[in-house]
Amino acid sequence: MAPVSDTEQPLLHGHEAWKLRSTFGSTIAGVLCAALISYAAFTELAAEEAHVAHYYQFLIHVLLMVFVGFGFLMTFLRKYALSAVGLNFALSAVVMLLAVLALGAVQQGLLEGKKAVITIDLPLLIDAAFAAGSAMISFGAVLGRATPGQLLWMLVLMVPLYTANQYFVFDKFKALDIGGSISIHAFGAYYGLAVSRWIATAPGGGTGHPKNGATPATDVTAMIGTLFLWILWPSFNGALGATPHGTDVWQWHCIANTILALLASCVAAFAATVFFTGRFDMVHVQNATLAGGVAMGSSASLRLPPAASLAVGALAGLLSVTGYALATPALEGSGLALRDTCGVHNLHGMPGVLGGLASALFTWLPQLAAANAELAVRGAAQPLWQLAALGVTVASALVGGTVVGWLVSSVGVVKQELATEQLYDDAPFWGAHEEESDGTHTH
Amino acid sequence: MAPVSDTEQPLLHGHEAWKLRSTFGSTIAGVLCAALISYAAFTELAAEEAHVAHYYQFLIHVLLMVFVGFGFLMTFLRKYALSAVGLNFALSAVVMLLAVLALGAVQQGLLEGKKAVITIDLPLLIDAAFAAGSAMISFGAVLGRATPGQLLWMLVLMVPLYTANQYFVFDKFKALDIGGSISIHAFGAYYGLAVSRWIATAPGGGTGHPKNGATPATDVTAMIGTLFLWILWPSFNGALGATPHGTDVWQWHCIANTILALLASCVAAFAATVFFTGRFDMVHVQNATLAGGVAMGSSASLRLPPAASLAVGALAGLLSVTGYALATPALEGSGLALRDTCGVHNLHGMPGVLGGLASALFTWLPQLAAANAELAVRGAAQPLWQLAALGVTVASALVGGTVVGWLVSSVGVVKQELATEQLYDDAPFWGAHEEESDGTHTH
Amino acid sequence: MAPVSDTEQPLLHGHEAWKLRSTFGSTIAGVLCAALISYAAFTELAAEEAHVAHYYQFLIHVLLMVFVGFGFLMTFLRKYALSAVGLNFALSAVVMLLAVLALGAVQQGLLEGKKAVITIDLPLLIDAAFAAGSAMISFGAVLGRATPGQLLWMLVLMVPLYTANQYFVFDKFKALDIGGSISIHAFGAYYGLAVSRWIATAPGGGTGHPKNGATPATDVTAMIGTLFLWILWPSFNGALGATPHGTDVWQWHCIANTILALLASCVAAFAATVFFTGRFDMVHVQNATLAGGVAMGSSASLRLPPAASLAVGALAGLLSVTGYALATPALEGSGLALRDTCGVHNLHGMPGVLGGLASALFTWLPQLAAANAELAVRGAAQPLWQLAALGVTVASALVGGTVVGWLVSSVGVVKQELATEQLYDDAPFWGAHEEESDGTHTH
Repeated sequence: MAPVSDTEQPLLHGHEAWKLRSTFGSTIAGVLCAALISYAAFTELAAEEAHVAHYYQFLIHVLLMVFVGFGFLMTFLRKYALSAVGLNFALSAVVMLLAVLALGAVQQGLLEGKKAVITIDLPLLIDAAFAAGSAMISFGAVLGRATPGQLLWMLVLMVPLYTANQYFVFDKFKALDIGGSISIHAFGAYYGLAVSRWIATAPGGGTGHPKNGATPATDVTAMIGTLFLWILWPSFNGALGATPHGTDVWQWHCIANTILALLASCVAAFAATVFFTGRFDMVHVQNATLAGGVAMGSSASLRLPPAASLAVGALAGLLSVTGYALATPALEGSGLALRDTCGVHNLHGMPGVLGGLASALFTWLPQLAAANAELAVRGAAQPLWQLAALGVTVASALVGGTVVGWLVSSVGVVKQELATEQLYDDAPFWGAHEEESDGTHTH
Repeated sequence: MAPVSDTEQPLLHGHEAWKLRSTFGSTIAGVLCAALISYAAFTELAAEEAHVAHYYQFLIHVLLMVFVGFGFLMTFLRKYALSAVGLNFALSAVVMLLAVLALGAVQQGLLEGKKAVITIDLPLLIDAAFAAGSAMISFGAVLGRATPGQLLWMLVLMVPLYTANQYFVFDKFKALDIGGSISIHAFGAYYGLAVSRWIATAPGGGTGHPKNGATPATDVTAMIGTLFLWILWPSFNGALGATPHGTDVWQWHCIANTILALLASCVAAFAATVFFTGRFDMVHVQNATLAGGVAMGSSASLRLPPAASLAVGALAGLLSVTGYALATPALEGSGLALRDTCGVHNLHGMPGVLGGLASALFTWLPQLAAANAELAVRGAAQPLWQLAALGVTVASALVGGTVVGWLVSSVGVVKQELATEQLYDDAPFWGAHEEESDGTHTH
Repeated sequence: MAPVSDTEQPLLHGHEAWKLRSTFGSTIAGVLCAALISYAAFTELAAEEAHVAHYYQFLIHVLLMVFVGFGFLMTFLRKYALSAVGLNFALSAVVMLLAVLALGAVQQGLLEGKKAVITIDLPLLIDAAFAAGSAMISFGAVLGRATPGQLLWMLVLMVPLYTANQYFVFDKFKALDIGGSISIHAFGAYYGLAVSRWIATAPGGGTGHPKNGATPATDVTAMIGTLFLWILWPSFNGALGATPHGTDVWQWHCIANTILALLASCVAAFAATVFFTGRFDMVHVQNATLAGGVAMGSSASLRLPPAASLAVGALAGLLSVTGYALATPALEGSGLALRDTCGVHNLHGMPGVLGGLASALFTWLPQLAAANAELAVRGAAQPLWQLAALGVTVASALVGGTVVGWLVSSVGVVKQELATEQLYDDAPFWGAHEEESDGTHTH
């Protein structure tokens, strides 16, 4: 098995394995201990039934999206599937554990002394799963290039920033963003991209890297992720759709608008990939088909004409294919030298911004504004607050990501970086597999 | 990578890639534009909550079956997995988008002037997903042999015919067919088989084709499809089970009858595959285990003795294995020269007919007829109307499929056909993958 | 394809294929016939709606865990994936079919003459799926080493023993075990381990066997299983959570306690695998992350502080990694010579025992006992009954498994055993696949 051995440099045997203990291992153990203490001191379960019939299936759907959907979507890399699905698993659990504390403390007013403990209920667990989803978007930007230790620090530090931004978007600005075009998708994408500028920046580590690509088999496992995300996205946008008024008519809007947007973005992405490339491109099929769900996230709860949802979805699908085909190569080749392994800018960044802009438009158009007066509590100023939420989110994600990217690439034991030949490869971190004795592969 | 290059004939490079634009690309873009205009003119969302608690989980289950279930079941071909799961995705979305319009217009009486717009609600979305399921059954008959452009035209033209047949089965004949043994499965199978007689008919393109088979790895991904279909089939047969009387006792019947039938067809298929072949045959395991769900589709809402559901399932599993082992080779070798890549005749055709016959039997047997008088609104004539629905469905599917098969194989730019060495292969339509640098495969 | 042919000894061609007919085929056909007769004589469907809204989604989740979760988790073996997922499918269906009869008869008092027929409703179907889950745990202990015929007899004979044990745990001892740490997980694990001592005991058939290991690709499909199990485990522990008092506050406890335990066991398993091995070990990631769900199974319905659930989960994850790293090699190398292909002792055995002990502790601690007085009907004696349930379960599983293991390895036509080179290999039982013509694999 000679060809593999060149990725198993002595560099990552011996003291480098020790580094996995001292960076990832000790940090995750510390997080667990801190969580145990904090949960003991500051949490309780909701005393009543917590509306299992109402919320539970949506929590399960969101968990399937975060752990199976994002996890398998990222298995497309030919040599990095174990890390993709494995680290997605560990990091999502870490973020959920911490986000329950951070989101709970802010939403329930512990910092202002309104309550002494966080009450854990199903909506809080859904919100924590959303935070994990946003974190996995960030992960996608640096997939295959950051070490497990860097990823862990990057996402642990993301939690307070994500929470603070959510506080501004919802509590201060009263923006509409029930499915998180702004606060989940745009935030996660731009945070990840800002970090990405600091990680594994040596030449030869970008799209041209020999391991930065798929095989037919990994493209199929990635489609598991795509399809679960696509099918369950109505639940993502609608999970908290019942909150505002105790009825589920808003939830029905979330579901219907999102399904229509997804149908349109799937069809538009297939049309666009053929026109751009003359064939079907798996990168487009796996990602741009989902852009309608992202872009509908801010407006999902609005009462809209079905054609408006279709139009948002179609535009998002088209925008996303365009991004993959044109924007990603341009950004990587530009002075920014921006690397974005999963193209999160094309699936979550630009469609998230589109979603924020669409919500401003829909709350500004007189007829739609009138039909949705109940939801847009800012009245005529709602469109401006939507734009403010979008702007603050993108800015804080970029600033926060830049600071954290500098930290994890420059400070202490975490700054250890992968050599170019170790990028996009499971070998440094996962046990070596014995050579396959499968007769179809030997000779 | 020399062995692959023989499938990448110049034929499909250059002007053939252009053909993908002019057949598939322009058609799907046209469908999207037409849908945008039609939805703007003729649709609205249900104003109320649309019964999210009641219908939503069933819609999600049906979507999982259509997009993940059928999509992954068809990944069994060794070189065609990207097309299987990718085209299943695009084509299902197209059919759903159009079926909302077609089914909505007919069911809500737009053609008769009763209403001016289609009201989109969850049952209509479920019905549109059923139409996509029926279309994916048709797809299975020509899997690997039809071009994307042919598939798209074949399934777009299927939508009005499917809708018209459904109108006769339910509105005119008042047949019982809640899970679609007749109107979904038999219709989809015979429509696809009729089209199949026109597509890629040259010698050497059938079961003996070197790429028309599985590998262990593709058999495993196909099992993802099988298991999701098997587990969620009770939701398929029960999704609309609450409609008739506003209670869910009928839904409980649908669920229980279908689970029992599926348990029996799984066990019967495993028994039969061992007796037929002396070993386990993955084709049987992937398909015949599901036949109980198909065959229970017309009778699912009836109050039946549990052993009756078991018997229907066991018989369907046995029939399906027999079909794969004996009928498929016989039909391909006969004067019909019938090619059926996924064996939809064995999984959806014959078990669908069995389901229709079973519904006639169950509504004819005096004791069962009396226990189900509420549902069988035709009274003593109900069995005859069940048979009429079955006959009209099979006949219209065969006639419609024959006409459409002629069209897509003979008319305009769509008639372009694949050369024999291009059959069952992703290469002509998907981007080439770089050679795997995985050490276990190089030497 | 020469390297495969050495596993296709004449031994399993010809009369050995006949043996598959005479052991597996005739037995499973007999089970189906017996089920048809028994269902006809002794079952009816619940006459009313059977609480679809309440139970149905939980049944689907449990089925997904048993058929997809366990099935794909066991696909990790490099040459045994078809058997893993295929036999998991057939055997689970067989056990469900029989468990409806066995559990229904005992729970509804048919043996005591209280009723003449078993009423099938959703809770009974969930309970039957639990029995199939316990059986699949036993399957994991002998994965790749038992023949299909041995597996079938082993699990058919398990059903009455499982049912009898459940009767003691719940009806006689009134133990708390809603998610089955004791009655499902510990029972299944120790039954399987006791059988395992009799199966394929020749030297060279254990962990060192060349086919007893994974490839990167099979590790990815195994993660499908892990993630579905992890995400849906709250439904496993909470499926029957509404029974005791007709409200779902207990179900909320089950869900919340299990989610917290799973988050902790995931994080703890990742920490532990790094400290034990200096890297990530896929065996630990696939299994130990789930141990929190197992260990929470007896206490899930209790009102607990969130930190208690986290602590149980963290301890279970740590215990499970320790088991894989230390206990499995020690047990295999010891005088017991215990083989345990999937390490069920580490995922279900020890965490199940931990779960039983935790339930004794929680019902003994005064403050927690007071908060849960409603559930612990034995009052101050509850902890002792929890321990009694655990002890009786482990003892009966070990004794029953020993007897059945002797039977299937010594009696009649079933005793046929696999040669060492046929272990962990699909080839003897599944049709040979043609050589892959995929260009990436040829040369």
